[in-house]
Amino acid sequence: MTPPRISADRLLADLAELARIGGRPDGGVDRVAGSEADLAARRWLASRIEAAGLEARTDAAGNVFGRVPHSRGPWLLLGSHTDTVPAGGRLDGAYGVMAALEILRAFHEAGHPSAEQLEIVSFYDEEGVGAGGGLAGSTYLCASEHAAELSGYLELHIEQGPRLEAEGFELGVVDGIVGIDRWDITIHGAANHAGTTPYSMRRDAGAAAGRILHGLRRLVQAVDAEMVANVGEVRLLPGATNVVPGEARFVVEMRALDPRSLRRAAEALHEEVAAAAAEAGCEATVTPRSSVPPAPMDPRLVGAVEAACAESGRRWRRLVSGAGHDAGRMAEVVPAAMLFVPSHLGISHSPNEHTEPALLAQGAWVFASAAAKALEFPRDNDHISGK
Amino acid sequence: MTPPRISADRLLADLAELARIGGRPDGGVDRVAGSEADLAARRWLASRIEAAGLEARTDAAGNVFGRVPHSRGPWLLLGSHTDTVPAGGRLDGAYGVMAALEILRAFHEAGHPSAEQLEIVSFYDEEGVGAGGGLAGSTYLCASEHAAELSGYLELHIEQGPRLEAEGFELGVVDGIVGIDRWDITIHGAANHAGTTPYSMRRDAGAAAGRILHGLRRLVQAVDAEMVANVGEVRLLPGATNVVPGEARFVVEMRALDPRSLRRAAEALHEEVAAAAAEAGCEATVTPRSSVPPAPMDPRLVGAVEAACAESGRRWRRLVSGAGHDAGRMAEVVPAAMLFVPSHLGISHSPNEHTEPALLAQGAWVFASAAAKALEFPRDNDHISGK
Repeated sequence: MTPPRISADRLLADLAELARIGGRPDGGVDRVAGSEADLAARRWLASRIEAAGLEARTDAAGNVFGRVPHSRGPWLLLGSHTDTVPAGGRLDGAYGVMAALEILRAFHEAGHPSAEQLEIVSFYDEEGVGAGGGLAGSTYLCASEHAAELSGYLELHIEQGPRLEAEGFELGVVDGIVGIDRWDITIHGAANHAGTTPYSMRRDAGAAAGRILHGLRRLVQAVDAEMVANVGEVRLLPGATNVVPGEARFVVEMRALDPRSLRRAAEALHEEVAAAAAEAGCEATVTPRSSVPPAPMDPRLVGAVEAACAESGRRWRRLVSGAGHDAGRMAEVVPAAMLFVPSHLGISHSPNEHTEPALLAQGAWVFASAAAKALEFPRDNDHISGK
Repeated sequence: MTPPRISADRLLADLAELARIGGRPDGGVDRVAGSEADLAARRWLASRIEAAGLEARTDAAGNVFGRVPHSRGPWLLLGSHTDTVPAGGRLDGAYGVMAALEILRAFHEAGHPSAEQLEIVSFYDEEGVGAGGGLAGSTYLCASEHAAELSGYLELHIEQGPRLEAEGFELGVVDGIVGIDRWDITIHGAANHAGTTPYSMRRDAGAAAGRILHGLRRLVQAVDAEMVANVGEVRLLPGATNVVPGEARFVVEMRALDPRSLRRAAEALHEEVAAAAAEAGCEATVTPRSSVPPAPMDPRLVGAVEAACAESGRRWRRLVSGAGHDAGRMAEVVPAAMLFVPSHLGISHSPNEHTEPALLAQGAWVFASAAAKALEFPRDNDHISGK
């Protein structure tokens, strides 16, 4: 069944109107979860849903839903989030929510027979700028009774990375969302006078830390060529030019789609940290800081998104999402999949976040087509009875 | 000519009394240059000089001098400093000043014919805790007319390093004081999302910095096995666990007695920083931050100190001072030499700074003997006319 025609103009006008709520002079958006702007955006979204003759609902977590009045589940949920990081962009999250609204509106206006099986959502606090850690709204939904009324979850999002644009693709089908393991590492050496302590008597925690910073890429790529890792900050103590560092503290972050890669990389990290510490006459501790498991997308929904991409005739590829998304949390309880459009230069979480309007419109059209395909699946709800 | 007998008891009692000025409950000393405690210590020193029937004088820089009244130069200057770092120790500087006082006092009391050729000093602000950068008093003296009235400078000091104790020596004859070159290094990469940016598109300034931190020891030791270097702190920007560092900033400090070693190590550093940056897809800047030239000690005065050590029958060695001292500045205008006694565990700039009283007493005795030998040199003052 072909999807109804969606209006790119209306989608882009909605996006522009939403960008004014918490909008910044530099073109960015300040709409941190719980802020006045965030709550205003949720009220505005509810009013837009109602203006289309649809039913708006806000749950106890602050998630805003929209659906055809009096419709009954199970619903295929489409959505993303409208909160931003401080000085964020106009598209991260907002694009997926506005596209979901346009699609439901178009299905409803066209009297499409599947309109009643669609629901849209703006999840509360995806970004986790405050204490919550993010994904607050989707986490709440997963634990609520409403989760059992959903047939699946589809999310349209900007890539927030440079790959699609750099490789000349216009659409990206997400295989899965990486797991993220973080390790706290402390190297224990001895702080000493940097002039009077000969090398043979030093226990330089900074030298050991340097070996990890430099070697981390090789370490994880030997385990899994697709995985990445990072050290974003390092502290040397006591932190003086003329004192050999007695302690080094840093966090190693590792991301991979395959949990076996995360495990093997962690083993390699433990060994390498011990070796680097020993080389510098130091000791080291490696302790887990946090772990978010990988979230593979649902093969049948991924197939629907792929089929829609293929029909579009545009260049598309599959890729792994290196960033977290509500779809990752939703995948724990319902079939889920994602479609990406390119991010110009990979810039996100910035006022400079940008995707050409033509690519945004095309992404929404392909996403609508994917949703229509998913709505044609037999409604077995096996995933629910299987829980 | 043998030196007069000096009193270890009186020296240790003076040291204990000085340690109470700015003394801390933990046994350390707070006597930062210019503080009330520092000025009180200078007044106390002047009163001790006068109590011995000697003449005390304070110059415009705050240096406190003592000599036999109405004596005429040239003088052999003995001394060190009485200021400390915050939470410093009882011996750093203070030991050399108190020993100088005891030696002049003993020469004067004994009616030694060379007493009138001795002068003692407590230099102002050696440590440079404030804005001055240290060596303020000796720098002032070097530029003053009084410098031309000096035949040389001898300084007794704790080692402030672990070598003498670790190797079983009780005395150390200082060959020279290292030069210290500091280089500001900035690696310019690109800050990117640590999940969505594949390795092939990263420009990780932290990885480049890590290579320098880890490889610095090998780099400088390939140039000169005796030289040392240090990176005491490093900043990665913007400094977040999930952001690839776009910039790394750190200071490389290098110390060597041979200026050619400092030059060759700097060349190697420039090459290695460029290579490390290139490997990580970054650029780098290396700019000089500060440079203190090496200060070789005067061979004839070193010979006098060595002869005194040899006569003592105790275990002694020559060594390079990796820390800066007033003797380094003085060596620019007069012949200078130093004698070290061990520092327990190499600890200095700490309330835990310690040297056994017997070693302090022995050091002062050997230092007095070295001064007596130096006073027997023909007074040609060639070093002054040569300036």
